[in-house]
Amino acid sequence: MRHPQLRPDGELQHLLSIDGLSREMIHRILDTASSFVGVSERDVKKVPLLRGKSVFNLFFENSTRTRTTFEIAAKRLSADVVNLNINTSSTSKGESLLDTIDNLAAMDADMFIVRHSQSGAPYMIAQHLNEMRGDAVSVINAGDGRHSHPTQGLLDMYTIRHFKGDFTRLRVAVVGDVLHSRVARSDIQALSILGVPDLRVIGPLTLVPEGIESMGARACTDMREGLRDVDVIIMLRLQNERMRGALLPSAQEYFKQYGLTREKLALARPDAIVMHPGPMNRGVEIESAVADCPQAVILDQVRFGIAVRMAVMSMLGAH
Amino acid sequence: MRHPQLRPDGELQHLLSIDGLSREMIHRILDTASSFVGVSERDVKKVPLLRGKSVFNLFFENSTRTRTTFEIAAKRLSADVVNLNINTSSTSKGESLLDTIDNLAAMDADMFIVRHSQSGAPYMIAQHLNEMRGDAVSVINAGDGRHSHPTQGLLDMYTIRHFKGDFTRLRVAVVGDVLHSRVARSDIQALSILGVPDLRVIGPLTLVPEGIESMGARACTDMREGLRDVDVIIMLRLQNERMRGALLPSAQEYFKQYGLTREKLALARPDAIVMHPGPMNRGVEIESAVADCPQAVILDQVRFGIAVRMAVMSMLGAH
Amino acid sequence: MRHPQLRPDGELQHLLSIDGLSREMIHRILDTASSFVGVSERDVKKVPLLRGKSVFNLFFENSTRTRTTFEIAAKRLSADVVNLNINTSSTSKGESLLDTIDNLAAMDADMFIVRHSQSGAPYMIAQHLNEMRGDAVSVINAGDGRHSHPTQGLLDMYTIRHFKGDFTRLRVAVVGDVLHSRVARSDIQALSILGVPDLRVIGPLTLVPEGIESMGARACTDMREGLRDVDVIIMLRLQNERMRGALLPSAQEYFKQYGLTREKLALARPDAIVMHPGPMNRGVEIESAVADCPQAVILDQVRFGIAVRMAVMSMLGAH
Repeated sequence: MRHPQLRPDGELQHLLSIDGLSREMIHRILDTASSFVGVSERDVKKVPLLRGKSVFNLFFENSTRTRTTFEIAAKRLSADVVNLNINTSSTSKGESLLDTIDNLAAMDADMFIVRHSQSGAPYMIAQHLNEMRGDAVSVINAGDGRHSHPTQGLLDMYTIRHFKGDFTRLRVAVVGDVLHSRVARSDIQALSILGVPDLRVIGPLTLVPEGIESMGARACTDMREGLRDVDVIIMLRLQNERMRGALLPSAQEYFKQYGLTREKLALARPDAIVMHPGPMNRGVEIESAVADCPQAVILDQVRFGIAVRMAVMSMLGAH
Repeated sequence: MRHPQLRPDGELQHLLSIDGLSREMIHRILDTASSFVGVSERDVKKVPLLRGKSVFNLFFENSTRTRTTFEIAAKRLSADVVNLNINTSSTSKGESLLDTIDNLAAMDADMFIVRHSQSGAPYMIAQHLNEMRGDAVSVINAGDGRHSHPTQGLLDMYTIRHFKGDFTRLRVAVVGDVLHSRVARSDIQALSILGVPDLRVIGPLTLVPEGIESMGARACTDMREGLRDVDVIIMLRLQNERMRGALLPSAQEYFKQYGLTREKLALARPDAIVMHPGPMNRGVEIESAVADCPQAVILDQVRFGIAVRMAVMSMLGAH
Repeated sequence: MRHPQLRPDGELQHLLSIDGLSREMIHRILDTASSFVGVSERDVKKVPLLRGKSVFNLFFENSTRTRTTFEIAAKRLSADVVNLNINTSSTSKGESLLDTIDNLAAMDADMFIVRHSQSGAPYMIAQHLNEMRGDAVSVINAGDGRHSHPTQGLLDMYTIRHFKGDFTRLRVAVVGDVLHSRVARSDIQALSILGVPDLRVIGPLTLVPEGIESMGARACTDMREGLRDVDVIIMLRLQNERMRGALLPSAQEYFKQYGLTREKLALARPDAIVMHPGPMNRGVEIESAVADCPQAVILDQVRFGIAVRMAVMSMLGAH
């Protein structure tokens, strides 16, 4: 059965999750992105690929940072961008989500960037649009609940490929609150598709999802053991709200056990890279000195993120 | 006496209300809009008619949906658009409305799209701008209090003309809370100017404005009687806040009497169209199955709405 | 020692304060601005000077009005503009200010317009960007705490030069809450650099900063005495929150002593101009009739403000 994000010819119609992308498709997206890295370094950072297209940033969950990355990417492709923060809008007037979508699609939208606190919302929107409008409108999932954040997954893969090359020889550790993290889920899926042979998930037992082995990863509660000889460390953001629940001890205790310090970093390979999706809690999941050390490629992730989003948008919009 | 929205030569200077437009002017706006319907279906949805013009979306009353339609229309005309949500801005700092307007006009604004909870605010702004700046700046009323919503009235006329052609043979029913609806007022004025011979207003007595006959309409409290043989049904949105007052029974009771069901729709002509300005309350003023049936042209209204707004903006800005 | 806003060659890298600008530099900015006044009067109000540049409006303190002036200026220079209201964004997620800046800079930003309630924040940002990115990114201070508001200072100088010509023969009075006003501070610095020989600061003792003489000004608590024979009156906005403290009597009492009335205005030279940075509190710091009289050039300040901001942005971005 075809994944709902693909067209009959196997091309991307939507980007809803990493799950369902082939290894070739991921590499093709990363190859396309590398041609856009140069655009943002030019004097005139603009190409006319989406000129006259209407892109709607549909954020049902507020995120200035992520919204900005898509807005910048769309503008550098010369699209017209409209930002909609939907908490304060029609939904509050009692209109259903799909009525809101139909309404915006009727304005001849070309692309929706959707962020929603409920897992699966972008799928539901994409399926509805397929039924109503064929393949005229594309949806990009900009983060849905705990489920998926595929452009973050792709930009993380871009970063790893940029610094490390061949995925099939890498040891990668994902550290932190894997259970609640859509970034972790997308990264693990992508790393698995790309053939990473040694993938470790490090965190307290309460924050490691059951059945992680079926995703090709190995769980580990001891960070010192888990980091040994890895090439890539992906730190996750710790949501403060987790503290309030019973899942976690204090921030200090968490930092002691799972915070990335220089001392723990020394257990990894000397040329290991340190990644973080941002925003960072310095002193909680990562020591400040590590965040600023030469091995940290956190700002490269952001830079490559614009290129990756331009790549995805241009591939969806080129149809 | 000339209507304040017209220039001495009879051309549009502002669009403040349907009232004061001639039948010829309305048809001219709709003709212009029909040339813009095609633009939104093109690959590059853009024309350079307002390139380098500055359009300010001045929303004193929040409405993401309406703001979006004007923003998209302006961008497809290549204008520069600035969104101002004025609740949180200068007015809260104690500045008067007209000082705010003077200030923005001094930035060499070309057009203000104004939405305000007070009836007459766009008139006051337009008159003030005429005094201060001659005919340099145009105002479009995007909804003022209970008074007027002229672009909605025009896009409704576009929709009716598109599906039904000649207005002078039509039976049209407007159903719901006519008393509080600026959409209803604008629609009734437009239908009357365009020569609709049989115009019915259906709703509970408490929600039908007095003197409706002087606007060329006939009041009717029995929906079954009122819908008989009509060609066009315009449903109105029921504002939930009306329920809290003494004007209305419960939503269920309202739906029973004035909700548009398949059974009531069957009383109209078999080719009757169903319209709604959105956002819909499914199950309150309209049955869900009716909202999605082939006779419903609710999404066409939205689509034509972009073209109608492009038409109005280009006519005002062409001067 | 070089001021941090200047490049080694003496050109502007950032605009952080009036302090540190030479008389020649100020005149050069005003000369550049005068070429942009014409652009905003054209039919197509746009020049391609910043095409493909990414400008971020970074407002840590909300100000729709000031944000709008920079947005309009950037769009008329053909830049891509992204608005970020940072109260509701990453900082609330516990990220540090400089991490936010690094993150946005990694998106290949060209320019940050920064407004912040803390004095010195734009300096800190500019210094950090210089360390991290050399001279690739420019910062414009759009108001920081009580410290500085340099584009307001420059547009005030443009207005004075436009109406009065030679600064070295002028008598200028700055009236009101000088102590808390970044506008006053920037104006006084600029007037002093430009060689104004008679500069008076008028206000209650509690609102005149100590050591004002060292800035080249003379303090005066009697408004009638202070206004005598001046060529230029710069009224300051009275922040309502000052009333609540013990610094001021009631608004009525303030108006009586320091409000600019027609009667007090008559003490100045007959061709004196009246300025105000807006938004005005009519009846508090300025009589309504004075705000609307021919000597008031308050809306000219706004108009010139767009040109001055275009000038500064084009000079910083031209590098």
